[in-house]
Amino acid sequence: MSQPRRNQGPLLRFTKMQGLGNDFMVVDAISQPFRLRPDMIRDLADRNFGVGFDQLLVVEPPGLPDVDFRYRIFNADGSEVEQCGNGARCFARFVRDQRLTNKRVIRVQTAKGVIELKVGRNNLVSVNMGVPEFNPPAIPFAADCRKEVYTVDVGDQVVELSAISMGNPHGVLLVDDVDSAPVASLGPMLEKHPRFPARANIGFLQIQDRGHVRLRVFERGSGETLACGSGACAAVVAGCLRGLLDNRVEVELRGGRLVIEWQGDGTPVMMEGPATTVFEGQLRLPAEPRSRRRKGHGKS
Amino acid sequence: MSQPRRNQGPLLRFTKMQGLGNDFMVVDAISQPFRLRPDMIRDLADRNFGVGFDQLLVVEPPGLPDVDFRYRIFNADGSEVEQCGNGARCFARFVRDQRLTNKRVIRVQTAKGVIELKVGRNNLVSVNMGVPEFNPPAIPFAADCRKEVYTVDVGDQVVELSAISMGNPHGVLLVDDVDSAPVASLGPMLEKHPRFPARANIGFLQIQDRGHVRLRVFERGSGETLACGSGACAAVVAGCLRGLLDNRVEVELRGGRLVIEWQGDGTPVMMEGPATTVFEGQLRLPAEPRSRRRKGHGKS
Repeated sequence: MSQPRRNQGPLLRFTKMQGLGNDFMVVDAISQPFRLRPDMIRDLADRNFGVGFDQLLVVEPPGLPDVDFRYRIFNADGSEVEQCGNGARCFARFVRDQRLTNKRVIRVQTAKGVIELKVGRNNLVSVNMGVPEFNPPAIPFAADCRKEVYTVDVGDQVVELSAISMGNPHGVLLVDDVDSAPVASLGPMLEKHPRFPARANIGFLQIQDRGHVRLRVFERGSGETLACGSGACAAVVAGCLRGLLDNRVEVELRGGRLVIEWQGDGTPVMMEGPATTVFEGQLRLPAEPRSRRRKGHGKS
Repeated sequence: MSQPRRNQGPLLRFTKMQGLGNDFMVVDAISQPFRLRPDMIRDLADRNFGVGFDQLLVVEPPGLPDVDFRYRIFNADGSEVEQCGNGARCFARFVRDQRLTNKRVIRVQTAKGVIELKVGRNNLVSVNMGVPEFNPPAIPFAADCRKEVYTVDVGDQVVELSAISMGNPHGVLLVDDVDSAPVASLGPMLEKHPRFPARANIGFLQIQDRGHVRLRVFERGSGETLACGSGACAAVVAGCLRGLLDNRVEVELRGGRLVIEWQGDGTPVMMEGPATTVFEGQLRLPAEPRSRRRKGHGKS
């Protein structure tokens, strides 16, 4: 490393990880307490000028009893978000690789509540993604009553879709072949469809057999992505409701494979998948602005 | 770091750097000799699954007398390329920061020949970008004779441009305002114009005064980029030939600023600009396939 210069802040160690191509900068804020400002997160997220990542994961000491860690997730724009299935798997792998815990079942405090992660063989991590919600106003989706399949007018065509909340709203369409599915045209029209007042993630699901599906997801606000964990859960739940899938299904996404398990109405969806360390890094944070360092000391 | 596992190769230390947003993974192959295969370079270049970079710079011991280093440049697709002005600046900063040399004038063997780099105050690095070439067949550009400005038919309009080689072909157009310049429409049409048989980088140049310009470049094969070093050189040369610029000009590109100096026909163009270390990293390379490790030992 080059020597620190004037106007340079503290050294920050981090790990770059990815789960199905959804990539994260992961920071241990237990052994190196630090404070990141939103503008610093935006600079770090830049793929040319910074480290480059979809999201920043910060591992902190727990604030509750019977919990092992707290973790916080920040989008590349610096805003804090509630949950991310791919990030949760990377978090679990990180705390074990860094020897912050040797448990295989890890209880974690997130902005959404306490979640439980299980690290299994081959470093596959299993995440409880919560109980799916079908009640239209709770999704939210405009409909008179709960159905397994809704008919929706979009442009000059009519499509059939299932509407499900996994904490965020999803619409799932059955297609014959994901490779030729109209993701780029139908995706944005359905994402913003008036019947999804909070917009929605739109999944295009191809069923191969009762235990294997292929899926592409047009994510709310992001467009088509390599892998959407909650989208995989919603798609398998939709297929189960229609009687087309068993309760353990392998989902092939563009970024890789997930295994989704669901035992039926009222039970949580379990998602199992990989988490990979890409590299270990360290960088110098910029110094805090003088006004911040002298906060509370009056005019300078 | 986690412990090495079966099927893991050696540890590789690297530095991530950028010059005007053109970003590089830089490897010291003097203290850690290694061999990267093209498929490994492609994997490392991936911005979600790997380190992510525009180009890989490899610093090697020199193969010639009176030269300090050899350096090689690989594109993200694994192919080796000849030169890159932004990369040369990062290289010079790297060998000084890593204490591989304490010289301020560094002679480097590249695939294109020996170049000389100067590290000045504030870690700005100056690169000799070579003597510009105006002879139409050498650019190559289809024209009967050398002119300062050519008239070119493109679509249903006629544009005026200068044609210059900086080792690669450039077309430069004057515009009133780079922000509203038709880079996305005219850029690709001129890049592939029949009068540039090897295609060309297309610069859109706004002259503010005799010492300050703004520039956007549509790069051959890449589209519009944050900063093109040879494009900045070609643009200033074009402005000088037209009598509109002095011999030292500050060029504002989307990714930052360069200072270009040119003393006139037959002299080399000097480019000065920043080079920044983003972070230091280390990763485990994949193990070499068994067939490669046993190379020369016959069937296994």
